[in-house]
Amino acid sequence: MQIGVFGLGRMGANIVRRLLKHGHECVVFNRSLDKVKQLVTEGAKRANTLDEFVEQLAAPRVIWLMLPSGIVTEESLLEVAARLSPGDIIIDGGNSYYKDDVRRAKWLHDRSIHYIDVGTSGGIWGLERGYCLMIGGETSIVQKLDPIFASLAPGIGSIPRTPGQAQLNSTAELGYLHCGSHGAGHFVKMVHNGIEYALMQSYAEGFDILRNANSPEISESHSYDFNVSEIAEVWRRGSVVGSWLLDLAAIALTENPSLSNYTGYVQDSGEGRWTIMAAIESAVPAEVLSAALYARFRSRQDHTFAEKMLSAMRQQFGGHVEPVVELSP
Amino acid sequence: MQIGVFGLGRMGANIVRRLLKHGHECVVFNRSLDKVKQLVTEGAKRANTLDEFVEQLAAPRVIWLMLPSGIVTEESLLEVAARLSPGDIIIDGGNSYYKDDVRRAKWLHDRSIHYIDVGTSGGIWGLERGYCLMIGGETSIVQKLDPIFASLAPGIGSIPRTPGQAQLNSTAELGYLHCGSHGAGHFVKMVHNGIEYALMQSYAEGFDILRNANSPEISESHSYDFNVSEIAEVWRRGSVVGSWLLDLAAIALTENPSLSNYTGYVQDSGEGRWTIMAAIESAVPAEVLSAALYARFRSRQDHTFAEKMLSAMRQQFGGHVEPVVELSP
Amino acid sequence: MQIGVFGLGRMGANIVRRLLKHGHECVVFNRSLDKVKQLVTEGAKRANTLDEFVEQLAAPRVIWLMLPSGIVTEESLLEVAARLSPGDIIIDGGNSYYKDDVRRAKWLHDRSIHYIDVGTSGGIWGLERGYCLMIGGETSIVQKLDPIFASLAPGIGSIPRTPGQAQLNSTAELGYLHCGSHGAGHFVKMVHNGIEYALMQSYAEGFDILRNANSPEISESHSYDFNVSEIAEVWRRGSVVGSWLLDLAAIALTENPSLSNYTGYVQDSGEGRWTIMAAIESAVPAEVLSAALYARFRSRQDHTFAEKMLSAMRQQFGGHVEPVVELSP
Amino acid sequence: MQIGVFGLGRMGANIVRRLLKHGHECVVFNRSLDKVKQLVTEGAKRANTLDEFVEQLAAPRVIWLMLPSGIVTEESLLEVAARLSPGDIIIDGGNSYYKDDVRRAKWLHDRSIHYIDVGTSGGIWGLERGYCLMIGGETSIVQKLDPIFASLAPGIGSIPRTPGQAQLNSTAELGYLHCGSHGAGHFVKMVHNGIEYALMQSYAEGFDILRNANSPEISESHSYDFNVSEIAEVWRRGSVVGSWLLDLAAIALTENPSLSNYTGYVQDSGEGRWTIMAAIESAVPAEVLSAALYARFRSRQDHTFAEKMLSAMRQQFGGHVEPVVELSP
Repeated sequence: MQIGVFGLGRMGANIVRRLLKHGHECVVFNRSLDKVKQLVTEGAKRANTLDEFVEQLAAPRVIWLMLPSGIVTEESLLEVAARLSPGDIIIDGGNSYYKDDVRRAKWLHDRSIHYIDVGTSGGIWGLERGYCLMIGGETSIVQKLDPIFASLAPGIGSIPRTPGQAQLNSTAELGYLHCGSHGAGHFVKMVHNGIEYALMQSYAEGFDILRNANSPEISESHSYDFNVSEIAEVWRRGSVVGSWLLDLAAIALTENPSLSNYTGYVQDSGEGRWTIMAAIESAVPAEVLSAALYARFRSRQDHTFAEKMLSAMRQQFGGHVEPVVELSP
Repeated sequence: MQIGVFGLGRMGANIVRRLLKHGHECVVFNRSLDKVKQLVTEGAKRANTLDEFVEQLAAPRVIWLMLPSGIVTEESLLEVAARLSPGDIIIDGGNSYYKDDVRRAKWLHDRSIHYIDVGTSGGIWGLERGYCLMIGGETSIVQKLDPIFASLAPGIGSIPRTPGQAQLNSTAELGYLHCGSHGAGHFVKMVHNGIEYALMQSYAEGFDILRNANSPEISESHSYDFNVSEIAEVWRRGSVVGSWLLDLAAIALTENPSLSNYTGYVQDSGEGRWTIMAAIESAVPAEVLSAALYARFRSRQDHTFAEKMLSAMRQQFGGHVEPVVELSP
Repeated sequence: MQIGVFGLGRMGANIVRRLLKHGHECVVFNRSLDKVKQLVTEGAKRANTLDEFVEQLAAPRVIWLMLPSGIVTEESLLEVAARLSPGDIIIDGGNSYYKDDVRRAKWLHDRSIHYIDVGTSGGIWGLERGYCLMIGGETSIVQKLDPIFASLAPGIGSIPRTPGQAQLNSTAELGYLHCGSHGAGHFVKMVHNGIEYALMQSYAEGFDILRNANSPEISESHSYDFNVSEIAEVWRRGSVVGSWLLDLAAIALTENPSLSNYTGYVQDSGEGRWTIMAAIESAVPAEVLSAALYARFRSRQDHTFAEKMLSAMRQQFGGHVEPVVELSP
Repeated sequence: MQIGVFGLGRMGANIVRRLLKHGHECVVFNRSLDKVKQLVTEGAKRANTLDEFVEQLAAPRVIWLMLPSGIVTEESLLEVAARLSPGDIIIDGGNSYYKDDVRRAKWLHDRSIHYIDVGTSGGIWGLERGYCLMIGGETSIVQKLDPIFASLAPGIGSIPRTPGQAQLNSTAELGYLHCGSHGAGHFVKMVHNGIEYALMQSYAEGFDILRNANSPEISESHSYDFNVSEIAEVWRRGSVVGSWLLDLAAIALTENPSLSNYTGYVQDSGEGRWTIMAAIESAVPAEVLSAALYARFRSRQDHTFAEKMLSAMRQQFGGHVEPVVELSP
């Protein structure tokens, strides 16, 4: 089917490519036209302006926004909506806050425009592997967009089927799912990312212990000089901790077991934060998810004010003077 | 090759079966003889007593202990060792503490007996999938036992190979690895289990948030009644959080989305605890691994004394009286 | 000076008493008139209706709201504001969210009514000890209300003075402080409560360890049957952990060392939650404050869904069956 | 009474001074004799060698060791014990591990020497305020040493008495307590320090949030530029979070509100670590105590290996490149 894609960054461009590969017609637009040109050479239809973009799409239009969450998505959505007609559909495939989805869906509904929120997981591997899609919005519209979702998602593939899932008659086995009403897609994607942070932190702490096992105090008689890349590799087969993130860790550790090509300055995006807020709003203890988020906050500072407070109190009661040290890298 | 297996519980019996399937000769012994009889019907050689067990094995003997860690393994190892000759090999495939391995290896070395520690992951799926083996001990002995390890491990299978691993000429790709000297195998298995707890807790907290998303305070205008089994399923394809544990979660949630067949009383074994102790001994922050362990501790109590302390202080300063409530199930 | 107090619960009534004791004229109102009557016998002026309440106050009026935070405060504030004149002052002494303060102050400002937010700490001891007041709003209005704040606050008392504070010429030494613009008072009170939760949890966990020190595994040769009330008492003198909360813990533990009069079901109020949200919004790692909040969430459930997830995964990979247990009380 | 004190560091020297002030006879010894000379000018009796030290004490001797915990205390204890006679008493007033106490007490008991472990809190303020003493060992010996403990402890002082404590007829009100058998004193001191870390971290995180409250995202319409020294001061009077540690925080923040004289590199000693191990050994969830310890571990590194793992995984799945940043100080 025909679809317009606005936003051709790493994710947006690959989504277009996967849709083209599955025979869909893609009209593409981007603030920077370089990316438009590239995709046109791959079969997409060019739009030089937002007006052109909307004009080239046949009503009822289907427009996929793939833009940075927050103000960029918000403003672009308003600009697009101003050009649409009743019955058109806007899909937000970015990482929006589910409360924004609810608000936007209501605002657009008052203008007879449909709104669908899609949480999209898969990163740079999605072009080839397919994207896991978590979808929120009206059932009839989600059903209408099924060809798009089916093309973007991985499909059953070679992954063993879960006993009993086939009988549920759900698209979940195909890698996409209508999760619920407006915001439900981004809510599920939000929790997905909260889990992702914690899974990553789980491996990270474990490898940190292995990496530091040569401290003489671990065992008085022994210390271990572990080969962390081989350990990541061996865990990939037959162990309980096998996962896609472990596969990626093994790749990175095989390239460079000391990870000296990384500083350890770790960004976080909104979903990890919103997940904790959602947990707090519903009184769910989320200790591990929170700790994973805080580890990222901490990684971006040299020292926290909190740490200075500790030093200050220690000096006050015990006369403890901080050592003058060069931090270990 | 010939091997004696002492301990025929869930893990031990399946190890014998997998070895038999790969053409090894297995002499089996167990305190309760019922399990011996069953395996004899499947091709194993029967030992009715420990003396018989040792006698049936040709020197230099290879004996795999697969017993509950702690006092059972310790005492059984002493009983076996008393019957062995110089050059014989004892393998502890259970979940021993790596500091015990170091001590035992030294004690056995003084008696010219070799000791190998093997951390074994794979659970009840290992018979079919193969076991991930993490091995510690003398290199020459580990090499001698290679046919055993190669049979028990999964092999490369259909899992995509990590770029660069082939050049490392390591057995890691085959699912078994000589990790280092005595205790190294159980150390790596220990950290593996520490990670396992945290991965499990990551998913558990995430699904808890999804399950509670129908709290009206999450969103003033919306609440979501998520189908957690479908969400587990959709994440299995193309998403960043795919893993074997997620596969298992999907199976369980598909069987019973409310998990009403579980109470939530969660055991922990030594490895999770020792992992934290190792982290502390080498000053590694292990927030997520610790939190996962504490969640299990907490799950086994109705209320902690700590919680009563909180209530007591609240009453003292604020006159707050605890509500008389029935706890939610 | 003259002041109207609306809300005569535990906190509100004692605030009136302390103001009366310091010679202020208090007009009092409450939805339930019983409490009004009681305070009238102690010297307050009675208002039977909100209209009477406002009429009895001389313009520019000063009205202190001491009501449950959230919808009750919001609605009552609107009802009061509808009866006020330009120049009047509303003080919210409850536990409002600082973002609500900012919004309300703006709304009232448009009606020429002043708004002051006051975080009030001290609990049921405040009548005697005085209240610690954290104040937000316009400087000129805060200064005008100084006699009220000075009467409610503890004053310097017998507490040793902090070197250098006298020179700062701040009211902080007297136990009240203008912290900043609208919302600043409740923001500081919010963080105060976040800290309070964590301090309480710190003691609670420590005493839990002491209480459980009779586990044989703590020390193979020894177990300790500690007298926790005496330990709380001894720490009150000369130790680093002395605090008012410890004083209260000592009182409770002396009354009943087993705390068997408490169940351990622990409420939390908005401030603890908002503190974490503020931390997340400014990327401050707040591990301890979060953990203290989660411990309260957990205390109010029999078992979490997360725990059932753990049990389900354990059964799937290891065949582990949950024991049938009676939870320890 | 007469007592020998071995170890004249910050704590040991002040203990001697406080004992001298209360009329006890102190024989003092130290590896570095400078400190001996100083205390001799203040009334102590000089010992130039360990032999002299023991000879100057009348049997049955009472010897207080105040040395760095671990190997120094262990070796010194052996050297002293070699010179003692049956019936003599060794007191370890340092921060020994309680399991070492149990072992030492047994070893000394076999030589008819008594061993008492004393956890000593009070830091550099103890000389003036008195020391909080937590004592383990045989009851008859503890009673014999009562004059020493009574002199070192603060006494009831001006601190309000806990209702009901007087009837318990305990020394706890005086600031010292016989907590139980060998190791009990250091066990209680260990938990005391575990709590101390967590209390400190509670304040530290709270002030960190206040300090960062000027982030524009905290409140869209407002940001707060809090005066943290005044806030620490105001909380000292009438609030729930008042404590000695807060008093010290107020001193430090009044001296320098930005704490720019500290780097935030925070040491930890054995007690904090052993507390977590004791918690784990008895399956007590100790989330807050652990987090406080980990914050110190983290403060001493530029970046952890764990953080590099996170960056590596992020790059693998998302192509995320770490920004080149100067860390904020």
